[in-house]
Amino acid sequence: MSCVADPRVLVAGASGFAGAIAARLVDRHPAFELSAVTSRSDIGKLLGDVYPQHRVDAALQELDVDRHGDADAAIVAYPHGAAAPVVAALRERGVRVVDLSADFRLRDRPTYEHWYGEHGAPELFGDAVYGLPEVYGEQVAAADIVANPGCYPTATLLALAPLARSETIRDVVVDAKSGVSGAGRTPSAKTHFVSMAENVTPYGVGAHRHMPEIDQELAALGAPIATTFTAHLMPLDQGELVSCYVTTSEPWSQERVDEAYADWADGKPFVEISAVPPGVRDVRDTNVCRIHARADERTGKVFVFAAIDNLWKGAASQAVQNLNLMFGLPETLGIEP
Amino acid sequence: MSCVADPRVLVAGASGFAGAIAARLVDRHPAFELSAVTSRSDIGKLLGDVYPQHRVDAALQELDVDRHGDADAAIVAYPHGAAAPVVAALRERGVRVVDLSADFRLRDRPTYEHWYGEHGAPELFGDAVYGLPEVYGEQVAAADIVANPGCYPTATLLALAPLARSETIRDVVVDAKSGVSGAGRTPSAKTHFVSMAENVTPYGVGAHRHMPEIDQELAALGAPIATTFTAHLMPLDQGELVSCYVTTSEPWSQERVDEAYADWADGKPFVEISAVPPGVRDVRDTNVCRIHARADERTGKVFVFAAIDNLWKGAASQAVQNLNLMFGLPETLGIEP
Amino acid sequence: MSCVADPRVLVAGASGFAGAIAARLVDRHPAFELSAVTSRSDIGKLLGDVYPQHRVDAALQELDVDRHGDADAAIVAYPHGAAAPVVAALRERGVRVVDLSADFRLRDRPTYEHWYGEHGAPELFGDAVYGLPEVYGEQVAAADIVANPGCYPTATLLALAPLARSETIRDVVVDAKSGVSGAGRTPSAKTHFVSMAENVTPYGVGAHRHMPEIDQELAALGAPIATTFTAHLMPLDQGELVSCYVTTSEPWSQERVDEAYADWADGKPFVEISAVPPGVRDVRDTNVCRIHARADERTGKVFVFAAIDNLWKGAASQAVQNLNLMFGLPETLGIEP
Amino acid sequence: MSCVADPRVLVAGASGFAGAIAARLVDRHPAFELSAVTSRSDIGKLLGDVYPQHRVDAALQELDVDRHGDADAAIVAYPHGAAAPVVAALRERGVRVVDLSADFRLRDRPTYEHWYGEHGAPELFGDAVYGLPEVYGEQVAAADIVANPGCYPTATLLALAPLARSETIRDVVVDAKSGVSGAGRTPSAKTHFVSMAENVTPYGVGAHRHMPEIDQELAALGAPIATTFTAHLMPLDQGELVSCYVTTSEPWSQERVDEAYADWADGKPFVEISAVPPGVRDVRDTNVCRIHARADERTGKVFVFAAIDNLWKGAASQAVQNLNLMFGLPETLGIEP
Repeated sequence: MSCVADPRVLVAGASGFAGAIAARLVDRHPAFELSAVTSRSDIGKLLGDVYPQHRVDAALQELDVDRHGDADAAIVAYPHGAAAPVVAALRERGVRVVDLSADFRLRDRPTYEHWYGEHGAPELFGDAVYGLPEVYGEQVAAADIVANPGCYPTATLLALAPLARSETIRDVVVDAKSGVSGAGRTPSAKTHFVSMAENVTPYGVGAHRHMPEIDQELAALGAPIATTFTAHLMPLDQGELVSCYVTTSEPWSQERVDEAYADWADGKPFVEISAVPPGVRDVRDTNVCRIHARADERTGKVFVFAAIDNLWKGAASQAVQNLNLMFGLPETLGIEP
Repeated sequence: MSCVADPRVLVAGASGFAGAIAARLVDRHPAFELSAVTSRSDIGKLLGDVYPQHRVDAALQELDVDRHGDADAAIVAYPHGAAAPVVAALRERGVRVVDLSADFRLRDRPTYEHWYGEHGAPELFGDAVYGLPEVYGEQVAAADIVANPGCYPTATLLALAPLARSETIRDVVVDAKSGVSGAGRTPSAKTHFVSMAENVTPYGVGAHRHMPEIDQELAALGAPIATTFTAHLMPLDQGELVSCYVTTSEPWSQERVDEAYADWADGKPFVEISAVPPGVRDVRDTNVCRIHARADERTGKVFVFAAIDNLWKGAASQAVQNLNLMFGLPETLGIEP
Repeated sequence: MSCVADPRVLVAGASGFAGAIAARLVDRHPAFELSAVTSRSDIGKLLGDVYPQHRVDAALQELDVDRHGDADAAIVAYPHGAAAPVVAALRERGVRVVDLSADFRLRDRPTYEHWYGEHGAPELFGDAVYGLPEVYGEQVAAADIVANPGCYPTATLLALAPLARSETIRDVVVDAKSGVSGAGRTPSAKTHFVSMAENVTPYGVGAHRHMPEIDQELAALGAPIATTFTAHLMPLDQGELVSCYVTTSEPWSQERVDEAYADWADGKPFVEISAVPPGVRDVRDTNVCRIHARADERTGKVFVFAAIDNLWKGAASQAVQNLNLMFGLPETLGIEP
Repeated sequence: MSCVADPRVLVAGASGFAGAIAARLVDRHPAFELSAVTSRSDIGKLLGDVYPQHRVDAALQELDVDRHGDADAAIVAYPHGAAAPVVAALRERGVRVVDLSADFRLRDRPTYEHWYGEHGAPELFGDAVYGLPEVYGEQVAAADIVANPGCYPTATLLALAPLARSETIRDVVVDAKSGVSGAGRTPSAKTHFVSMAENVTPYGVGAHRHMPEIDQELAALGAPIATTFTAHLMPLDQGELVSCYVTTSEPWSQERVDEAYADWADGKPFVEISAVPPGVRDVRDTNVCRIHARADERTGKVFVFAAIDNLWKGAASQAVQNLNLMFGLPETLGIEP
């Protein structure tokens, strides 16, 4: 594929849902080599035994930064708090990192500490680029630490960017719905099949950690507001829908909406504008965000619905998209829609 | 149970999802006798063969108003448009009717015609009582025609009544989520298992027929607003959740919210206030509406989440609740939580 | 309901799936009084908070046999091994017990020890009646310890009894399918929503603990064979289907099959013979076993399909059926189909 | 990819579930060009609008054999009966065909007529190769008509081939479980979400059309028996599991089983032998058949469990596997596991 050796990519935390998909995508990627997969809970097992569907024939190792630090890049799929020290250790060895946790997403340290407590690598705080390639693609290309966005922020920001940039957003209600994989792999009463089958329920009401991330990035885009955001768990595996109800400072016509979204999608291979509301099945196992926007005459609001796969565009495949940019590769390589 | 004969209740349209449950509830009701079950599509079949789970041992007949008009009351479970003439014919024979369709819910005729077209029994338009017993219980007791509310209005109004009555609602976004049974029994691409498994999707965006009903009743309660309402289909059978984001004219404290909702639930056997957000499983196969309300300091809004079973409190068991009131019986008879 | 006080029934282990339903059924039963609910894991919580859908307004207590031994009867919903000592302690205080565990189902002690290890109350081994009321109803009425059958044996024995009694069974393959609630409430990788959504998988292959129980009872009925039995987990909550493929010593005609099954169902309020194969939805939340049997000309075998709700007829409601018999009450009281 | 033009492949019947996936696979295949997609029901629509998830940007056309007969090959995804005339017409124009229907699978014409009625292209009856590449790969390579196997026969034959070839099978019970997509795209009461959610039910009992196909091919492999076969619908979308209980003429040890299956899988890129029972999730959206076989000492039987994706290995991707062989390409091209 290239005259120089393919970049070698470590996946640390490959036994979680998103980490495992990241390992799979890197393993089959035409321009990357999977250097190793590590885990904190399943050391010694084959990743292909833990996740037969991913067919990655590699043993999960305990992370050893000295040994695994020989990679060119790493995708770190650790929980927040645990991620920062690993990112720091890898950076010391010159490894470029895409971090799936929340540890480097926020740019205001008191805000980070309010939501997450003490930071695990304060010396690096502020060094990362927010890894939403549709907004920060150029900075990502040059970055050494990319903070992969949360799943809800990914869908919400891709849905609202055209409106935010117009600086006409006055208020927005985001009602978000996620499959259960969003709650992670650790078994709990909440993720028990019997708890979620034939059920739907709000969670984290008024206190979801993705809220400051959404507010930070909406403000950066031009909408300095306190977003009303509520997440719900739904009885499905992968998939996420955000339903956004936007109050604007002036009425938008459908024509203006259509133009703004067509313009926004232009040149973005993973932003798909749909004439009808999306279903989460439309984007399962893809890096696509599918968006439907309409001006609602009756209420004067703009409604925007956006669907992503929370484990793909909301985590693993977006990490690969970022890696592609970091290594000067085509953005879609290995994750074609 | 009583020295006079039990009221005889006809269920017309018993082969639909809600009609079948209505037949089951009447059939087992300690104070009603199921006089007959009729159907437009399954004439001659046993209801117990069409719905084995309901165990109603009665043959579905073609509706013959002369013959079936000997009932004391009827639950009519027809589609809108088709319901009104049947209601009129039953009323002519003195049958008291609970109508599950939308035909008698709206009190403004141009609004009805705008959303549904010509009315099928214009001479009766305006004669019905809106059958939300928690609001109109006294009028229901005296009514000859009760317009059973739609499922979304039921959940939304029970969720918002305390706020509406305070006359402090300025705007409300209602994001509603329903199981697939809400789309009815007629097979279609939309209700195919494969369309909805692992999916969630908005529908009827900007044009859902429950909107004028919600607006009419919120206005009657004290909130004359244009509600922002969007319904979503979720991969489950029965169950409905409305997530309401309310902008008020003045900030509400959590104490005020708690008092208002405790006061609202007081004496209402089917209104359940919960300290945590409800899941739709909590109310499956019951007439209960389970509500969680909280003042959100961050946004200044009030969030209210309400769960019902769309086929029970959203249709069939609410009809029985209305019948109980119409015949002077305890409100909970035969539908105890 | 009676001139003497209603029997007081303790539910020990009420925070498990089956125990909670047992508590609900006893709580609403017209002839029993729920004396207390106990739990090993949720002491102090309201049962109605742990399971809002059951609406049982009682606090979960730590089991104290001295105090709780004042009940007339108990339903013990403990895991095998842990159940026997509790049953013994309750028996010492004169409490009549329905035990949901496997501890008293087997009549051969070496077989018990082979499958489950040492017995927790060896002095009582052999004292229990196997609580399948359709077979052992008379003995149950007089019993002090009733061993409530496993869910798979319940469905399998009700399905095969007419054939077993004819002494013509030579071999039988039972392919069983259960909802995830059958795996219990403890969260695990296996019961994680993401593991089971869109999945189906065999489990316990060749080593399922319900096999010796099935063999014991089939032999007692007239079929001394080694049953081929495999269980599968399916992506649903409650419900169980056993598909039985029976090789007989002589061919059965459909007429003979029909007669045998009609005869079997006669007088049994919870055995339902269906002309078409049952679905598990047909029996959800009921004590019914719905059975379809047919002679297959092509292979010479008899096929029998039986559906139950694993948590109801397979556990909690069958326990109530047994209690009804033990206290001389109508078999269907409080669990009417 | 090659110095000669890529083979042009028509997909006729691309609006069905399997046809749509076939179109997607051909569209992205590195060595095929999708010449056209046709439909009987959605003419003029974009395939990408009917199935957004497949992202095939082609309009569905009415089949015109004169025009579409310029393709090098065709995948025909029509119902049985309707397929044969289309296959015949395409063959007249020299198009090599993989037919997904049952029209060319059976080699005995009376058997075909017994199960399906009159044949639609009797002059071609017997000309096709049975397209199970793991068995008939060489013949497929030279064939002009390939009869793509049914989904249940695919899984069953791949599961039982090693035993059948040993000529020791005396009897086999196949209990098959399929996702609802197996019932096709036409909406019906059976495929309504509400019919299948939280349900599982046998169907086609004693009369499933895949039985003669299984018997024909098992006989060809060395097991001339009447298979006991029953299919069940499960509450999931894609996926199929066959549980096979095999009575052999002599006992098999686990060692012999392991050797036979290792030998069978050797060199077959899509046959995967697993040390634990497979789940259907393990093979979703792949052409893989995952198999677990074990000698059961207790009953003397051999148990074999095999999982496939009914729409992929059971239909669309197996068609592409066949096309790969027909055009001398690597068997896995475009459908790598």
